[in-house]
Amino acid sequence: MNKTDPGHFFEDFKLGQRLVHATPRTVTAGDVALYTALYGPRFSLFSSDEFARACGLAAAPVDPLVAFHVVFGKTVPDISLNAVANLGYAEGRFLAPVFPGDTLSAVSDVIGLKENSNKKTGVVYVRTTGTNQRGEAVLSYVRWVMVRKRDQDATIAEQTVPALSSAVAPADLVIPPGLDFSTYDWTLAGAPHAFEDYDIGEKIDHVDGMAVEEAEHQMATRLWQNTAKVHFNQFERNKDPSGRRLVYGGVVISTAKALSFNGLQNAGLILAINGGRHVAPFFAGGTVFAWSEVLDKADLGNVGALRLRLVATKDRLCDDFPDKDGEGAYNPAVILDFDYWAAVPKRG
Amino acid sequence: MNKTDPGHFFEDFKLGQRLVHATPRTVTAGDVALYTALYGPRFSLFSSDEFARACGLAAAPVDPLVAFHVVFGKTVPDISLNAVANLGYAEGRFLAPVFPGDTLSAVSDVIGLKENSNKKTGVVYVRTTGTNQRGEAVLSYVRWVMVRKRDQDATIAEQTVPALSSAVAPADLVIPPGLDFSTYDWTLAGAPHAFEDYDIGEKIDHVDGMAVEEAEHQMATRLWQNTAKVHFNQFERNKDPSGRRLVYGGVVISTAKALSFNGLQNAGLILAINGGRHVAPFFAGGTVFAWSEVLDKADLGNVGALRLRLVATKDRLCDDFPDKDGEGAYNPAVILDFDYWAAVPKRG
Amino acid sequence: MNKTDPGHFFEDFKLGQRLVHATPRTVTAGDVALYTALYGPRFSLFSSDEFARACGLAAAPVDPLVAFHVVFGKTVPDISLNAVANLGYAEGRFLAPVFPGDTLSAVSDVIGLKENSNKKTGVVYVRTTGTNQRGEAVLSYVRWVMVRKRDQDATIAEQTVPALSSAVAPADLVIPPGLDFSTYDWTLAGAPHAFEDYDIGEKIDHVDGMAVEEAEHQMATRLWQNTAKVHFNQFERNKDPSGRRLVYGGVVISTAKALSFNGLQNAGLILAINGGRHVAPFFAGGTVFAWSEVLDKADLGNVGALRLRLVATKDRLCDDFPDKDGEGAYNPAVILDFDYWAAVPKRG
Repeated sequence: MNKTDPGHFFEDFKLGQRLVHATPRTVTAGDVALYTALYGPRFSLFSSDEFARACGLAAAPVDPLVAFHVVFGKTVPDISLNAVANLGYAEGRFLAPVFPGDTLSAVSDVIGLKENSNKKTGVVYVRTTGTNQRGEAVLSYVRWVMVRKRDQDATIAEQTVPALSSAVAPADLVIPPGLDFSTYDWTLAGAPHAFEDYDIGEKIDHVDGMAVEEAEHQMATRLWQNTAKVHFNQFERNKDPSGRRLVYGGVVISTAKALSFNGLQNAGLILAINGGRHVAPFFAGGTVFAWSEVLDKADLGNVGALRLRLVATKDRLCDDFPDKDGEGAYNPAVILDFDYWAAVPKRG
Repeated sequence: MNKTDPGHFFEDFKLGQRLVHATPRTVTAGDVALYTALYGPRFSLFSSDEFARACGLAAAPVDPLVAFHVVFGKTVPDISLNAVANLGYAEGRFLAPVFPGDTLSAVSDVIGLKENSNKKTGVVYVRTTGTNQRGEAVLSYVRWVMVRKRDQDATIAEQTVPALSSAVAPADLVIPPGLDFSTYDWTLAGAPHAFEDYDIGEKIDHVDGMAVEEAEHQMATRLWQNTAKVHFNQFERNKDPSGRRLVYGGVVISTAKALSFNGLQNAGLILAINGGRHVAPFFAGGTVFAWSEVLDKADLGNVGALRLRLVATKDRLCDDFPDKDGEGAYNPAVILDFDYWAAVPKRG
Repeated sequence: MNKTDPGHFFEDFKLGQRLVHATPRTVTAGDVALYTALYGPRFSLFSSDEFARACGLAAAPVDPLVAFHVVFGKTVPDISLNAVANLGYAEGRFLAPVFPGDTLSAVSDVIGLKENSNKKTGVVYVRTTGTNQRGEAVLSYVRWVMVRKRDQDATIAEQTVPALSSAVAPADLVIPPGLDFSTYDWTLAGAPHAFEDYDIGEKIDHVDGMAVEEAEHQMATRLWQNTAKVHFNQFERNKDPSGRRLVYGGVVISTAKALSFNGLQNAGLILAINGGRHVAPFFAGGTVFAWSEVLDKADLGNVGALRLRLVATKDRLCDDFPDKDGEGAYNPAVILDFDYWAAVPKRG
């Protein structure tokens, strides 16, 4: 019996199949410290137990992106070990906060399959759910990846492309139970900007730039037990035209999110991921910059929500908001286009 | 409304002004592990809960420099985002030990302002206080920085240069409550050298050298949510004559302090910072060496205190104690001159 | 009195001497997070408190290699500061699991001394024991190192070379108390391979490759307070023909062990170290690959044990199991040959 896991090839996936991912993981204060060291986030809700308690929570939850990275990492050996490309995300919803001490595990349901016309690859759509030790779902999202076929001649029985929402509806956003911004300390949070202060269409240059080193992205990726070879195997990457290890896209998301503090100081709590695209590969040595655009607003009662677009560039300032041109082609410096909902306190 | 924080310029500071800094931070065992991984400190008091308990404490406190870095990091966005240079420290006192689980926040009072004759910059003096979740001050120190003016024509109303002590008086040193070295385990601590064994004027070469990598200083600096651009923004630093990211001075202090174990094994507990000067910039790739000089001694009753001068060099051995020459010019290899008080057990 | 620790030279060691090592260390969740970030291990037993509880333990213990690195690190200042070479390990046994919160300390007994014929160096054999805060031994192993003499003319009184077992006998393996694999979750563990599925002589290529950066091995080594100069002092290493800092051998062991998950998913719990040899030096920038061979099997009743040989290479695939040739000379890519026992669940 071959004991080395070869990963799944396109013809191994079946519509309706459920993949139970290995290696449940207890999230700890050590992960939070590393997350801080790797990205430098400054959102008080995740930085201070006291601040989080004043917002009605039991302690500081981890940044929702930590839960995302943990769950994503679990899925890699089963979903994307033989992937050619990570094509997109949709319908991501954070369903319960995660605290140090919680243990996360993950399952994925195959909801779509579409063979490519070259018969060499196909696109797999999965809905992944992360749950905590009480069996509560903490996160759910759809991801689609292009996966190689083992055998070009293998026939694919049932195929379908799932209908996916372009954005999570405000009614589907889940506010962490107990969250209460009525005594929100704007000074400790770092800025007075409330839900009411943001306008649809408003763009914010986050100004700061952050260089990423090889050791940093490797540590950031291994921390989540993400094993994708392209991030670590330099010997093999020497054969790639780039000759470089690829930085895990999640590193770019977390770096840009941390940079977004400067202008979105009160919008740290991601509620949903509407979509995301890694527009261009990113390699160590580059400096990441970012800007945001307010796409939409939703009044959820006790709190507000902003739908934000977070665009990251490599080695290029964002003071002129580099974007797509009229024909949809991105400015060549853009590496990430990420669409999410975040909770924001209302001035009340 | 511009939501990106531009930081304060010289004319924004007023004498008597209090700045409440954002992003309170809960210190955890994760921070301690990272501090160990980044510097390799070996002082038993901070390494072992059991050792600390045998010294009368509830558990191992964090190295006082951890508290210093956390509090310093909080002040950067308000004090030194537009700083030209970090000029000095004085009157630093550690007032209560910090344990994992404590949440630190910081305020700074503007105690001095002095415009430079070129009208482009001025020196701001602040007294910063870090407090824990019970409102107890854990640390207080004065720092002065040279800050750019936004508008060269802005007039500065009230100016004063505060009188600062050249050293904290022994009577003002605060010993952590409960600290009891009467059953101190010299073997587990790593050396038999007691308060009585150190002589004023004695110099100690710490022998070992420690290289610092880009990833290490970036992680060390982000860990404390210190956002100063010069440490991270390589794209912008390419325009600097050095072409390099500057290493945060606190990294040099912590590296040299960890090296000082070899000779000062029982003097890990810093009680006060009398002064400090980053004599020359330090860049990744260099190897740090250090030596110490005993400047003074104080018998505090149950414990002794040594006033120590910690000098660090770059890529140069310290076996001949490289120092200032007769005219006060430093040996070109010196990068740090740091003056502090540390508690040391008495032989009793 | 010279306060800088010069370390022990060969003539300082005496047969029967006990060295009590300094700097006891409390292991925490922060160490576990760093271990994960540095190596990317995926064994569920160490990753998830819930999984460990389902296996009868109170919580997830740390990887036994963490205990090994901590204890090994303590011994460096006393044993190997003046070492020329780390020659081997034997009779390593893990005697009790270590959990975050435990404080480890270490002692070494000198059990062998053998001066080399050149009179410049000698080989020191020590049996090192790590104990927790309850005084329970958690780990014991023999290590021998070649150490420089301070004075070539010093005479060595008593010399002996201890008789060492080539492997720990199955009867001497200690299973963590309470360990119960009867409801082992093979899916969450990542593979269905049980004790019964492994054959003596079977070889497994672990396929994946992992690059190691300077910052990573420095952090990994400092984390365990291992102070050996060759890992950190680049200034001094510039004089070495390699011009490079040596990677601590333990980094290679842990990297290879993490890679071994792919094929040995259920064999994460090391029970004993039979031997180990760092066949060639390893420097940052290289990519580590690994393969394993099943040397022996032992049915311990409730669990099985596999005796495994873990061979690591640098910048070379292991699909053809690079090994020693007929004359015992290693393939030039091999950097580690490590022999250990691991617990494996039986299918039952």
